[in-house]
Amino acid sequence: MTDRILEFLRNRREDGPCLVLDLDVVRENYMSFSRAMPDTRVFYAVKANPDPNVLELLAGLGSCFDTASVVEIEQVLASGASADRISFGNTIKKERDILRAYQLGVRLFAVDCEAEVEKIARAAPGSRVFCRLLCDGAGAEWPLSRKFGCDPEMAPRVLEHAHRLGLTAFGLSFHVGSQQRNPGMWDGALKTAATIFRDLAERGIVLQMVNLGGGFPTRYLKNVPAVKAYAQSITRSLHKHFGNQIPETIIEPGRGMVGNAGVIEAEVVLISKKADADKVKWVYLDIGKFNGLAETMDEMIRYPIRTAFDGDSTEPCVLAGPSCDSVDVLYEKEPYFLPVSLEIGSKVLIEGTGAYTTTYSSVGFNGFPPLKSYVI
Amino acid sequence: MTDRILEFLRNRREDGPCLVLDLDVVRENYMSFSRAMPDTRVFYAVKANPDPNVLELLAGLGSCFDTASVVEIEQVLASGASADRISFGNTIKKERDILRAYQLGVRLFAVDCEAEVEKIARAAPGSRVFCRLLCDGAGAEWPLSRKFGCDPEMAPRVLEHAHRLGLTAFGLSFHVGSQQRNPGMWDGALKTAATIFRDLAERGIVLQMVNLGGGFPTRYLKNVPAVKAYAQSITRSLHKHFGNQIPETIIEPGRGMVGNAGVIEAEVVLISKKADADKVKWVYLDIGKFNGLAETMDEMIRYPIRTAFDGDSTEPCVLAGPSCDSVDVLYEKEPYFLPVSLEIGSKVLIEGTGAYTTTYSSVGFNGFPPLKSYVI
Repeated sequence: MTDRILEFLRNRREDGPCLVLDLDVVRENYMSFSRAMPDTRVFYAVKANPDPNVLELLAGLGSCFDTASVVEIEQVLASGASADRISFGNTIKKERDILRAYQLGVRLFAVDCEAEVEKIARAAPGSRVFCRLLCDGAGAEWPLSRKFGCDPEMAPRVLEHAHRLGLTAFGLSFHVGSQQRNPGMWDGALKTAATIFRDLAERGIVLQMVNLGGGFPTRYLKNVPAVKAYAQSITRSLHKHFGNQIPETIIEPGRGMVGNAGVIEAEVVLISKKADADKVKWVYLDIGKFNGLAETMDEMIRYPIRTAFDGDSTEPCVLAGPSCDSVDVLYEKEPYFLPVSLEIGSKVLIEGTGAYTTTYSSVGFNGFPPLKSYVI
Repeated sequence: MTDRILEFLRNRREDGPCLVLDLDVVRENYMSFSRAMPDTRVFYAVKANPDPNVLELLAGLGSCFDTASVVEIEQVLASGASADRISFGNTIKKERDILRAYQLGVRLFAVDCEAEVEKIARAAPGSRVFCRLLCDGAGAEWPLSRKFGCDPEMAPRVLEHAHRLGLTAFGLSFHVGSQQRNPGMWDGALKTAATIFRDLAERGIVLQMVNLGGGFPTRYLKNVPAVKAYAQSITRSLHKHFGNQIPETIIEPGRGMVGNAGVIEAEVVLISKKADADKVKWVYLDIGKFNGLAETMDEMIRYPIRTAFDGDSTEPCVLAGPSCDSVDVLYEKEPYFLPVSLEIGSKVLIEGTGAYTTTYSSVGFNGFPPLKSYVI
């Protein structure tokens, strides 16, 4: 929460929930990453928030960009960054999208299997590829499935295949899980990566880069370690496993870059009880899972909520969205404590919502419009 | 799947997944409901698919409409239906939205607590209200939470409050859970409803209507009973519990009206294995949870998938979407059997996707556009 955001909201008159994102905070976050990891290039994960103002700011600061699709590549190019600062980091790409990316100048691609290597060899000849490793994601608040990456046993073969097809076997990537609260989690993956570097070097293939992924957390209700703690832990692991042959490194912060820069203002639509004996109240907001708060899925991300009544006594509430969909409930298994004095029509501020909110919005589920966004 | 849809897809040239919806099937579904339940008014649940062509067809056939928001009310009015055919069925409404609905001519509102009754009394004086009852949703493939409705013990007080404030205490509603496969599930709720009718009649308040809700299933992989079976079971229960004082009834089919009218065409983007020893393949489509298939959440809805290789031997596959989001996996806990001969670039047809697909699409998560839709 910043004074600029509060000032903006004081003057806002439109109806409906909105996100307000403060670019000063994004700038500070970028500088924290750069300062804490001066030898590491930052590839902002565009999917976290592709707002043109965010992309232009980061392009101006010298950031590189991790993209998931051709549309995101075009958005980055429109922000003023050149194609050599873009990674097409999605391991699942149509061959014609690889071709379009190549035509736009992109030369860095993620893979996790031989079939994807073959597409890139055909559509983007001579490009650099990095192979994503499966990582178990322990310690992350939003753990990853096995969807991305291959078993470390398989990775050397994938990269050898790339080398054989005329691509540059450039490096490895992994992702320790989103909102990763344990800086030590990078150590195991770096140990594995170093082993693969040595294996391939023995076969004449010299990898150059380790993509440390994202996972850097933003502060929701619990405190999280500072970027510096992550940097120190990662540097220690790099020296331990790579000795004096430290590879080039990149990071892909998304949530860590924009999460704490945004605040959503929402309104209480209804407060009710389901039965006289119920111990919890139901509080319904005008925002829910389908117009911005998709990351409350399985109650994984627990956002801090501020009200004008903070400090009053609180009571347990089930928090739900406004749609006619029974899954549109934000917090129920673990009720959320809100002030007793909260009323229908009260505004609430949902903090830490700069990442993964606007773009998860549905086009118009139940007729509710997508989340409005103001970047200031 | 209809010949008209197949014909349309044969001539389609654009890239990307799309939904094709056959209005002939919607018409047949409407006629089945009307024929099977001639004394019941049909309120189509607009949220299932608010395409203007669907709304115009149903308006022309004489359907009424269940709406979740002012935007949906405006969509229905634009289709040619008059305001007296509209129910504002969301129990969670801003008072200024109730006022707008009232100004547009809507006079029928859902409630489930006294606070909502008070809003309606202020913003839509003299309107009819029906009180939604909590229902446990057993037997449904998409069971409902406690989000909507109040305990049956509380309902008479809510309706008395409406009566006291000058509203017409019009009736009761309940919802037995979406994709409800047991026609007998309406019986318990009707028994409860009849008790409340008698209670209130003793206090001088004569309710007139029972809203039987939605829940009528569409056929996915398992067979479901025909509409007729639901109609017979419900009629039997009405006679059993209401004797010769059968109230006016309405139903709110959404999925049951449009689900089987639509087919999504998608493309296989990648097929891979995560490790040599893995028994399941990963098959990635160009559609996933964030651009149309949100109802695969928790693997609840299992769509039938057709390929050009049907009949070949099959193998277990994890099915996933194209986004850089690890939760964008459609079927993993229970793998999906697909032909061994399926290839990267193959088209697949996902059936039963006419409801709850286009509107759940995100505005552009990962840069992927919302699901395209063609109504033929």
